[in-house]
Amino acid sequence: MQARGKVYVEGSRPDLRVPFAEVELTGDHQPVRLYDTSGPGSDPSVGLPALRGRWIAERGDVAPVRGAGTPLAGADGRRPTQLAYARAGVVTPEMEFVAIRENVDPELVRAEIAAGRAVLPLNVNHPECEPAIIGKAFLVKVNANIGTSAVSSSVAEEVEKLTWATRWGADTVMDLSTGKRIHETREAIVRNSPVPIGTVPIYQALEKVGGDPVKLSWEVFRETVIEQAEQGVDYMTVHAGVLLPYVPLAVDRVTGIVSRGGSIMAAWCLAHHEENFLYTNFEELCAILARYDVTFSLGDGLRPGSIADANDEAQFAELRTLGELTKIAWAYDVQVMIEGPGHVPMHKIKENVDLQQEWCHEAPFYTLGPLTTDIAPAYDHITSAIGAAMIGMFGTAMLCYVTPKEHLGLPDRDDVKAGVIAYKIAAHAADLAKGHPGAQAWDDALSKARFEFRWEDQFNLSLDPETARSYHDATLPAEPAKTAHFCSMCGPKFCSMKITQELKEYAARGMRDKSAEFVSGGGRVYLPLA
Amino acid sequence: MQARGKVYVEGSRPDLRVPFAEVELTGDHQPVRLYDTSGPGSDPSVGLPALRGRWIAERGDVAPVRGAGTPLAGADGRRPTQLAYARAGVVTPEMEFVAIRENVDPELVRAEIAAGRAVLPLNVNHPECEPAIIGKAFLVKVNANIGTSAVSSSVAEEVEKLTWATRWGADTVMDLSTGKRIHETREAIVRNSPVPIGTVPIYQALEKVGGDPVKLSWEVFRETVIEQAEQGVDYMTVHAGVLLPYVPLAVDRVTGIVSRGGSIMAAWCLAHHEENFLYTNFEELCAILARYDVTFSLGDGLRPGSIADANDEAQFAELRTLGELTKIAWAYDVQVMIEGPGHVPMHKIKENVDLQQEWCHEAPFYTLGPLTTDIAPAYDHITSAIGAAMIGMFGTAMLCYVTPKEHLGLPDRDDVKAGVIAYKIAAHAADLAKGHPGAQAWDDALSKARFEFRWEDQFNLSLDPETARSYHDATLPAEPAKTAHFCSMCGPKFCSMKITQELKEYAARGMRDKSAEFVSGGGRVYLPLA
Repeated sequence: MQARGKVYVEGSRPDLRVPFAEVELTGDHQPVRLYDTSGPGSDPSVGLPALRGRWIAERGDVAPVRGAGTPLAGADGRRPTQLAYARAGVVTPEMEFVAIRENVDPELVRAEIAAGRAVLPLNVNHPECEPAIIGKAFLVKVNANIGTSAVSSSVAEEVEKLTWATRWGADTVMDLSTGKRIHETREAIVRNSPVPIGTVPIYQALEKVGGDPVKLSWEVFRETVIEQAEQGVDYMTVHAGVLLPYVPLAVDRVTGIVSRGGSIMAAWCLAHHEENFLYTNFEELCAILARYDVTFSLGDGLRPGSIADANDEAQFAELRTLGELTKIAWAYDVQVMIEGPGHVPMHKIKENVDLQQEWCHEAPFYTLGPLTTDIAPAYDHITSAIGAAMIGMFGTAMLCYVTPKEHLGLPDRDDVKAGVIAYKIAAHAADLAKGHPGAQAWDDALSKARFEFRWEDQFNLSLDPETARSYHDATLPAEPAKTAHFCSMCGPKFCSMKITQELKEYAARGMRDKSAEFVSGGGRVYLPLA
Repeated sequence: MQARGKVYVEGSRPDLRVPFAEVELTGDHQPVRLYDTSGPGSDPSVGLPALRGRWIAERGDVAPVRGAGTPLAGADGRRPTQLAYARAGVVTPEMEFVAIRENVDPELVRAEIAAGRAVLPLNVNHPECEPAIIGKAFLVKVNANIGTSAVSSSVAEEVEKLTWATRWGADTVMDLSTGKRIHETREAIVRNSPVPIGTVPIYQALEKVGGDPVKLSWEVFRETVIEQAEQGVDYMTVHAGVLLPYVPLAVDRVTGIVSRGGSIMAAWCLAHHEENFLYTNFEELCAILARYDVTFSLGDGLRPGSIADANDEAQFAELRTLGELTKIAWAYDVQVMIEGPGHVPMHKIKENVDLQQEWCHEAPFYTLGPLTTDIAPAYDHITSAIGAAMIGMFGTAMLCYVTPKEHLGLPDRDDVKAGVIAYKIAAHAADLAKGHPGAQAWDDALSKARFEFRWEDQFNLSLDPETARSYHDATLPAEPAKTAHFCSMCGPKFCSMKITQELKEYAARGMRDKSAEFVSGGGRVYLPLA
């Protein structure tokens, strides 16, 4: 039985319909509604419908950049950003959408965005996107990285990975393509994505200069950013904090600079002996991003790549600079997230969040893991889910997944699923630890189903119903076993859940009286297998 | 290339040889020694050699219970326990063994055991066992549960799971067999185990009374404990803290009593309306365990089985009683561990360790997970690795693994491996966070190999070399790729590790001079693919 369907909750206008996954339960049990990232489903050759098309048009603040049918951008110097509206006291349809999605007051959404504590990455050229909010007052989000590399993978495969990742719960997807066909891959991804799409524009800029970091320039980068903004990229990683004087701080590390963007910018800075052009041109970049409502994801180019390098001077020097840049971006009404590590042992995780929140004025933190040990390549979805859950509990707003292939190869479909599931676990564990309203209802519904031997309800409420069902069936495949009041761990005669159900009933009716009845009734606390 | 071999470090006597796994590295790099639980390897039909045979005999404190060739027990009222020796100021060969294994002072080992802060579970009838110490001053240990159930699995399969679990790093193994052939299964497991074996004797006692908890008695239990102690079981879970007045505290829970042993004893208490016979006969039980040096693992029969039930009155009432029982066991020179939950959201984990340490006088804590959310059946090795790593960091001495089949079925070989690996990750992450001396050397060696593109060294240093190698080869299968200075994530032209290696060399030689040289040399920071 597949009992998970999609339902919509309508907002203040008929074109504002917020999707949820609804799990039907057996008997009289109320259905359970879950946050749903899977989108309406698309034909890749057509793309998704423009959910936000009217909302964007109604505001009247954008115009086609090169006449009818060309991409949109802020008209007449206007900044069509969610931050600008939030600051002006306006609750946009996008803000109402996420308020319904998160079951919170729309005013909370507006206030958190206005304060810079949350972002709503929504390029005016990505009307297909279902709004999702990233901030510590809301559910912890998960990002999945996909993308072609010079060595392997195709456009069709990447679109399939996108759909697959959002099916399992990815809240945003980053297209990290390198190699050929970057533009074409991205176009296919954006048009088919119901979730915000992020990129790292320096990768494409580098391709444009033949792969030689020294030949990079502000002009090539700017052109690339505009190209991507016109396609509808919702947030962009920019390594503007890798400053020339910080590069030597990474020299004595065990693993130097492991961020691709960070190492590219470091190479450029050293070769030219000039300050990072992303830093020196940051205000112009802000003005560009403001026109499309592209959100900054200020990259941590000097993040630690090993336990040995965690929380060092290089990392924290860059973080301070990202705090300065945050204020500049905000002055341009541009939304900002801050990227974080990487590899961090557990006892150094909290310091990362505390300093990021302090130095970056509470801008949302967006971390890669962190991995809590380096010894387990092929299992880094687990080494990092530990760190991700903890850093989420401490206030990180979005967790960038790590797949089992991290450090070893490019993730395939199975790896994408494994990474997303591990990170949905981490994010939900963090939501519970933060006491997010309503988060525990999901756990309670599943545990109640488990305790009452409602096997089908337990499966359907699972993060991965198919796998839970198949694991159960591997030991007890028969259909009657799914309604049996026991499982393969204990067997029919010896089930603690069954014993306790009897105990509960028994204790509830008065211990002493029931005791006599219990013994005279045969003294058995389990039922014989039917 | 398989470069992991076994080496032995000799102690103060020639029959005291401590095994390590030694990883040979390429070039001039020093080999890396790792803690090794795999044992000397056995022919299941013969069993392992009696490593400790002479050490036990030399102490002259045991004698065969029924004449030559029968099991050993303390002679003439003597208590042949490691705790008794530690208290008497004696460093036994077993203590020296673990001191070498953990690279610490033997006196620290003795002092921690004497104080009750560490245990060395070593039944005098399990001479095959390689000593392993469990205590917060030492490396965090991992237990793997195996065992037949009424529904599935065989003796040979269980011995294979034992060998498989210790190969991947299980420090102890619990045989939780139920159903038929419990004695035979346990005999095969103990005779082939290089690690301490734990059991839950109430399971076998219940089989002896036809599966009816009400028919249990102290006499049947005592007989079962002696039977198992004579076989060589090193530690036993005893649910002596499930007191009659505590049972009603579990009635309003979402998941009642989920511990099998706890529900059995609760059923008995309520049916008879008498106090738990394990509690009322606890002193006699201590006297029995002392004769064989069986360590108590005081079970948490009222542990929470869901997020909703964590840290409640039922759980903590029992924990207080376990603290009382700890003092009684210590008066009999019996070693004690305390079992802990279960299902606990992250923000409630630390309280568990703090209260356990306070109320149980710093006896080692031994926890099942805890699972940090209930929503992911089929992935509970991950939901619980998060909790296990954290509870380990806070001072838990041993982590009982959870496999992907938890709540769904009996673990097979793949599940055992998945559970052990997830828990070795959690334990090592905790060792790093606690700053255990030498723990980070493993991470550093692997990260250095990664940064220097020593692929074979990286694989061989991994927790699971085969899987790491196979994941790499899935994208770049050719042999030359394993010596290539890039990987499939970035491709040959675009590798951050390679770029940084150039940067490091460059920065080290003076930034300004090198800058000119760098640009005049073509300004390329990567090498063309050979």
